[in-house]
Amino acid sequence: MAIITLTTDFGTKDHSVAAVKGRILSELPEANIVDISHEVPFFNIPECAYILKNAYKNFPEGSIHIYGVDSEPSPDNEPIAILLNEHYFIGANNGVISLISEGIKPSKITKIELPKMDKGPFPLRDIFAVVACHLARGGKLELVSKPFDELKEAKDFEPRIENNGDTLIGNIIYVDNYGNVVTNISKSVFEAYRKGRSFEIIARREKLTSVHTRYNEFIDFNLPENNRRSGGKFLAIFNSSGFLELAIYKSNSKGAGSAETLVGLNHREMITVNFL
Amino acid sequence: MAIITLTTDFGTKDHSVAAVKGRILSELPEANIVDISHEVPFFNIPECAYILKNAYKNFPEGSIHIYGVDSEPSPDNEPIAILLNEHYFIGANNGVISLISEGIKPSKITKIELPKMDKGPFPLRDIFAVVACHLARGGKLELVSKPFDELKEAKDFEPRIENNGDTLIGNIIYVDNYGNVVTNISKSVFEAYRKGRSFEIIARREKLTSVHTRYNEFIDFNLPENNRRSGGKFLAIFNSSGFLELAIYKSNSKGAGSAETLVGLNHREMITVNFL
Amino acid sequence: MAIITLTTDFGTKDHSVAAVKGRILSELPEANIVDISHEVPFFNIPECAYILKNAYKNFPEGSIHIYGVDSEPSPDNEPIAILLNEHYFIGANNGVISLISEGIKPSKITKIELPKMDKGPFPLRDIFAVVACHLARGGKLELVSKPFDELKEAKDFEPRIENNGDTLIGNIIYVDNYGNVVTNISKSVFEAYRKGRSFEIIARREKLTSVHTRYNEFIDFNLPENNRRSGGKFLAIFNSSGFLELAIYKSNSKGAGSAETLVGLNHREMITVNFL
Repeated sequence: MAIITLTTDFGTKDHSVAAVKGRILSELPEANIVDISHEVPFFNIPECAYILKNAYKNFPEGSIHIYGVDSEPSPDNEPIAILLNEHYFIGANNGVISLISEGIKPSKITKIELPKMDKGPFPLRDIFAVVACHLARGGKLELVSKPFDELKEAKDFEPRIENNGDTLIGNIIYVDNYGNVVTNISKSVFEAYRKGRSFEIIARREKLTSVHTRYNEFIDFNLPENNRRSGGKFLAIFNSSGFLELAIYKSNSKGAGSAETLVGLNHREMITVNFL
Repeated sequence: MAIITLTTDFGTKDHSVAAVKGRILSELPEANIVDISHEVPFFNIPECAYILKNAYKNFPEGSIHIYGVDSEPSPDNEPIAILLNEHYFIGANNGVISLISEGIKPSKITKIELPKMDKGPFPLRDIFAVVACHLARGGKLELVSKPFDELKEAKDFEPRIENNGDTLIGNIIYVDNYGNVVTNISKSVFEAYRKGRSFEIIARREKLTSVHTRYNEFIDFNLPENNRRSGGKFLAIFNSSGFLELAIYKSNSKGAGSAETLVGLNHREMITVNFL
Repeated sequence: MAIITLTTDFGTKDHSVAAVKGRILSELPEANIVDISHEVPFFNIPECAYILKNAYKNFPEGSIHIYGVDSEPSPDNEPIAILLNEHYFIGANNGVISLISEGIKPSKITKIELPKMDKGPFPLRDIFAVVACHLARGGKLELVSKPFDELKEAKDFEPRIENNGDTLIGNIIYVDNYGNVVTNISKSVFEAYRKGRSFEIIARREKLTSVHTRYNEFIDFNLPENNRRSGGKFLAIFNSSGFLELAIYKSNSKGAGSAETLVGLNHREMITVNFL
């Protein structure tokens, strides 16, 4: 039985998430439903895409991912069902798909057409859940949707390349739970332009000249614990999603401080990488 | 295997929710447990009922719903098990059932009586979970409870009718995740008194003369996107639960504003509907 | 199929929790994953242990508990797998195990050694999930780990005994969702030193001379409801986890006030018990 995941801006207080789950379980009692996140900022397409993109690849092929941010059907925002990278995605045609595709062309792009389709304000329950159950039962995409060639493009998570490839101008695209900030500079883009050179990463008044593979890599574990001076260290890392992240070691966004609060790095802030 | 749902004011940080789930899974390893909400405001019977009422109907008949708000057993607050609308409800006799019943008489009203009944401070784990597992295994209600005729009534989600039915005086009963505000005026009551007439809905200084079926219904999608002036639009809608809701289009309770923050509509605020 | 639980400081907005679940479900599609908490304060070993300790005992024997707080592998913080009280625990060697063991010696203490072990910044996904699936499939601990004798000790949740056992000096170790405060004085320690005597519990300027078994035990339910004066009552209780807790009846940490806000009892605050 395929897994059905949910990514929304519904929050977890209201009845909305449970209503979607109830509808799925009414159609398919043995469905395996997994929450990805219900705390996407309201109507925020890029953050929805960032979370879903980094989560979905960990699920088995054939999983079915419902995303529910800015989903109300309209002539500009049709319900779609996509097969990308052997995963199904069901949601509105609002740009999320182009932001998670990373240049891969979806193998199927379809617009949902159900016999009786309730285009009211709750498409996750009334449309997406129905399509997800159909797919989870092994039903064909073609029975619930039709080919479609108007997939909405959204501005991608790509840094600007300047100075003939000697400079990357990136942005902060996500602030995580710890207050560490994630840029739109992927490891593969970074290394492609770096070509083995030294570099400096400039974020506000801070400059970093190395990128770690672990948060604790800078620590000399041969020193006695009290002499290590690890607290509050500002560092760069390629995070587990493959993006350049700027972090405070053992960051505490609610206490002593984080890259967001200490270095003043907010969403959309510019980050410059110079290859030397 | 019947589904067991949970609706509580426990929050999600503490061990409490997991303790209940662990107890259920210890008795019934294949149980299918679904969270409805754990963010009911503390001891808030009406909000617990509002969330549960709008969630439960999406689940299959035979589902078992544990509600845990103000549950500690006392002579005034006995543990009860109810069969209503082909769903089981297990919780304290605190008024929640009368608020979710919408005038339907429960087909079974019983008081829980277990052989060894721990009336300590954690009835969800020590009483309700045991009863839920019994029912999920197909056990009879009569084996764990006895008929009971003291079901507590709570003031219902009903508007006042005035001026011989020309005016409805409602209240805001729920503020949702987006900051949209839900009134106690159901679509069926609204239409029964409207009798096809024009109307005005008065909320503080705002007046609305139409109710939509979708949030985006007021938008002319033939106009170019930049000319649509949709942002911040204040509107009325019959929401997916069938209640009159006052909303800001693409409301952002944490950002630009919501019906709660922009129009100043708080919990319990009065809403007037005049039929003309 | 054994249950796999998760206790982390990841929060529920980011993709991290879903990434771990996706990895588990990719290896073991029928896995039964239960969230204990993802709101452990950042890097907080004692609170992680408190939550996990009170949750895990409710799960069936053989359950597998992944804890993820301060987990990044280092020479000081190796990935370990423990069998304690017939439950498996998988996490970093950071002191959590000694805080949940309550004096019981684990029957197996092992250090994880996988053939290809990714010691990057996401061990929950890349190491712990793999080990959990191995155990859930019935695999032997010995195939993924080796005996280990450097289990880290952490200062335990124990009160100081003074005046030849006439006084217990405890601390507040946890503030729950309602703002009630939990001390490190267990019922068994309390009763062992009490030896049937009267006592006073001193918390700031407040003194209590009884400990209840239910929050509502002080109420005389024979009085009419309006005459009971129960609101705001400050009281002591042995909570459902067996610890002395100081509480406000029907506490509301976001509204009228709680033991934390009304009595000014914060984390680490000292509590004195004098046996008379």
